[in-house]
Amino acid sequence: MTIRVAIAGARGRMGQEAVHTIMKNPEMELVAVLDYKEVGKTLADTKLFPQSYSTPVFTDMVALHKKTKPDVLVDLTSPESVYQHTSQALELGIRPVVGTTGFSDEELEELTKYAQTNKVGCIIAPNFAIGAILMMKFAEQAAKYLPDIEIIEMHHDQKLDAPSGTAMKTAHMISARREMHGQGHPKEKETMAGARGADYDGMRLHSVRLPGLVAHQQVLMGGEGQLLTIRHDSFNRGSFMTGVALSVKKVMELEKLVYGLENIID
Amino acid sequence: MTIRVAIAGARGRMGQEAVHTIMKNPEMELVAVLDYKEVGKTLADTKLFPQSYSTPVFTDMVALHKKTKPDVLVDLTSPESVYQHTSQALELGIRPVVGTTGFSDEELEELTKYAQTNKVGCIIAPNFAIGAILMMKFAEQAAKYLPDIEIIEMHHDQKLDAPSGTAMKTAHMISARREMHGQGHPKEKETMAGARGADYDGMRLHSVRLPGLVAHQQVLMGGEGQLLTIRHDSFNRGSFMTGVALSVKKVMELEKLVYGLENIID
Amino acid sequence: MTIRVAIAGARGRMGQEAVHTIMKNPEMELVAVLDYKEVGKTLADTKLFPQSYSTPVFTDMVALHKKTKPDVLVDLTSPESVYQHTSQALELGIRPVVGTTGFSDEELEELTKYAQTNKVGCIIAPNFAIGAILMMKFAEQAAKYLPDIEIIEMHHDQKLDAPSGTAMKTAHMISARREMHGQGHPKEKETMAGARGADYDGMRLHSVRLPGLVAHQQVLMGGEGQLLTIRHDSFNRGSFMTGVALSVKKVMELEKLVYGLENIID
Amino acid sequence: MTIRVAIAGARGRMGQEAVHTIMKNPEMELVAVLDYKEVGKTLADTKLFPQSYSTPVFTDMVALHKKTKPDVLVDLTSPESVYQHTSQALELGIRPVVGTTGFSDEELEELTKYAQTNKVGCIIAPNFAIGAILMMKFAEQAAKYLPDIEIIEMHHDQKLDAPSGTAMKTAHMISARREMHGQGHPKEKETMAGARGADYDGMRLHSVRLPGLVAHQQVLMGGEGQLLTIRHDSFNRGSFMTGVALSVKKVMELEKLVYGLENIID
Repeated sequence: MTIRVAIAGARGRMGQEAVHTIMKNPEMELVAVLDYKEVGKTLADTKLFPQSYSTPVFTDMVALHKKTKPDVLVDLTSPESVYQHTSQALELGIRPVVGTTGFSDEELEELTKYAQTNKVGCIIAPNFAIGAILMMKFAEQAAKYLPDIEIIEMHHDQKLDAPSGTAMKTAHMISARREMHGQGHPKEKETMAGARGADYDGMRLHSVRLPGLVAHQQVLMGGEGQLLTIRHDSFNRGSFMTGVALSVKKVMELEKLVYGLENIID
Repeated sequence: MTIRVAIAGARGRMGQEAVHTIMKNPEMELVAVLDYKEVGKTLADTKLFPQSYSTPVFTDMVALHKKTKPDVLVDLTSPESVYQHTSQALELGIRPVVGTTGFSDEELEELTKYAQTNKVGCIIAPNFAIGAILMMKFAEQAAKYLPDIEIIEMHHDQKLDAPSGTAMKTAHMISARREMHGQGHPKEKETMAGARGADYDGMRLHSVRLPGLVAHQQVLMGGEGQLLTIRHDSFNRGSFMTGVALSVKKVMELEKLVYGLENIID
Repeated sequence: MTIRVAIAGARGRMGQEAVHTIMKNPEMELVAVLDYKEVGKTLADTKLFPQSYSTPVFTDMVALHKKTKPDVLVDLTSPESVYQHTSQALELGIRPVVGTTGFSDEELEELTKYAQTNKVGCIIAPNFAIGAILMMKFAEQAAKYLPDIEIIEMHHDQKLDAPSGTAMKTAHMISARREMHGQGHPKEKETMAGARGADYDGMRLHSVRLPGLVAHQQVLMGGEGQLLTIRHDSFNRGSFMTGVALSVKKVMELEKLVYGLENIID
Repeated sequence: MTIRVAIAGARGRMGQEAVHTIMKNPEMELVAVLDYKEVGKTLADTKLFPQSYSTPVFTDMVALHKKTKPDVLVDLTSPESVYQHTSQALELGIRPVVGTTGFSDEELEELTKYAQTNKVGCIIAPNFAIGAILMMKFAEQAAKYLPDIEIIEMHHDQKLDAPSGTAMKTAHMISARREMHGQGHPKEKETMAGARGADYDGMRLHSVRLPGLVAHQQVLMGGEGQLLTIRHDSFNRGSFMTGVALSVKKVMELEKLVYGLENIID
């Protein structure tokens, strides 16, 4: 049986990718699209999709639910609307798959409680790139055996902050699991400031910024006579789509809210 | 309490590394060495180690056991003697940690049964390079989510066979877990034979042989818009020592035989 | 003084990139666009560019030349029209920068002769990715000192042929310069056919095809105790634009036809 | 005709490698060894080489020259003796190939003048790793076309200083040739100090220190839509031997002193 999917935010850059991903997936059917304003009767009317995309567009979730009975709502809208969407979907019995970080702690707690009580599956994922999630999990696991670790993340030179959020999260996950560990030579010294990178609990984080780069990270783990490297390259937004499709499938088996893709993969 | 360790094969290349590894480890003590011929009273007498290495050398395991009461026997000898050593150690209640592949199926079965019945821990590991084991395990896990996989292994140009045993084992582990999966374009074609590598259940294996290289492997896993790469570099024999030390610790907690390092890491 | 540039093929995928590249370059001015059919008076009228792009569109090169006096014609059209454009531009004294391979030997010879006689600069480049050109040049140079070479090229899994044209060209360039050289162990053998890749004059070529990948190549050069790797990653069509801009500048200094970007860099 | 080679410092770690390198090279003959103290009549007597190594050992260069007439003296001794050796060799008409950095500016100047006047070839090379030299040269060349550059060097965690000398030298060579160039986003900021590495004239240098690593460096050069990476891995001391052999051949064609391997390769 195919999973009936609705998408909120279909006109955005991520949303457009998601439309194509669901369309192409033989186990899923795109039954409806939710928009905050009148943009036409079907996806085709938005001029962003081929003429053949006849999926109906709704501006009201209740009407959408009544007419199209979706199993899952993939929400790729902005932080402003995402809480209201998610809570409304849960009430209607539509399982939300949400791709933003814009929830307050109170909101998260409330949604978690509601999902649990009413046994409705819900997935909230700040990062849908399955490869990046696997990289973090593997690094965390390997840290037990190869606790000397450095992280190199590389992004285009329009990125303003360093280190990247993913590098910070990776270091945090490793740090939480790794035993206290002195790293590097106690007498090492920088003849030029910054050469050894940022220090996160003994691990070193290095941020490369160059034109041409997209989003890349490698975790280097050294041991006697050997090096284990786990690297993730994200070449374009499509990298999130494997995680979206996986979440749509997984949320059908859940009866509670799960936060973070790392908690639905094994 | 320190673990009392004996080593068989201490004069070999791996054995010499193992001697240093145990010596340096604060949780372990090297109490004896087993040799098949008279080479002196202590390690120092073999001329292969510093004068200060006063560990006694025995040619008989019973005498060795009586005098030095080791907890663990690390066996790095040749396939010819390894079965007899292991079986004798088990009978004496010394936990064997064995680094060869030279057991017949019958021998393995017998040792397994004996260890289980008598609740003596025993670890047999064809590959002690912990990083390589982790690479294989992670690739196997990731294959569920990113099933399009190619393996590139790189070795020095004195290696005769291609692909390497590790590449074959990696492909085998992935294949056993991965669902049936068509890979690559159905119409792809080689304009030069061999360009696409060896075909293992749809995965492609590529073997690079160049002077200078030691032993390296990367597993490439592609998904929409992304690539996950897991790479292991082995720079010298020291790469096995992390696995030896880990096994010595782990075997103390076991009451049965475990085959393969992948089965003692989590 | 800014260089006055006209573009043929501005509506194509490469052409659109080129329009932006010239627009952004402070040393250049986009003065006209040549199209084979009526698509509007200005670039903006084609609906492919912002409203502010007021560059005039012409369907006739003579009129274009008369009105806008370009120094250079960047031609990114199809093989069918490219010869006629180039020859006409040369006659009008506009320096052509052409990005296709679609010339016959006779056509190339004729254009070369014409450019030389009339001292008009002209650049024809099958590949504008400056990084790829540099990779090939460096590999060719290094082969003199590190003659043991393997090439790994990696592309998305929609690519049909293997090895890639760039890999073949790289091997060809190296081969032309490298002395006869036996590579690998004379007794090496494949236990699985294809593992050692395609054989090009002793060098081995390996082709990886995975979803997610774009266009990547690495040249590995091994020597005693060391490895030199030259790698080029092309992440999107923008990779050609550095070469286009460079050619526009270089063609102003030429008084003859140059074929291949490798011949204008030093 | 084979080149007659003498080695000073044959018992050192580099010297032992050099002995084997010259022995194996069909174009060269090892005719003598210079030592500062009595260690036996032949190489075999030093116990560091096989019985068959019958090359005579001398403690006096004049006697060595008289008896064995070498064409080239490969000097791998310490800074203390290297100047005296080199100057004496030049006077005797033996071409020196020297692998240390321990010359004062005055000494270098004097040796240069002497070599030039008397037309004796001489090569002094602080770094014999040909692959590292090529990496630096290529990075310098490519900087003209891809001026956005970051350098990542990786060494074992016993190395005390960061960045490495090779990274500094690479940055220096690029900087001398590259036009003034602002790199990165003007508003970029580190949320953790050191993340963006050390700043060398706008380029960023990152130093990784991990157990297991040997000596590795990559130069990353980004451009629109692309990345060019030049990487050198040094796995052991053997990496210097290609450069030693090359220098022995090249010094035969020289009639002056050349400083730096980069100046004898083309």
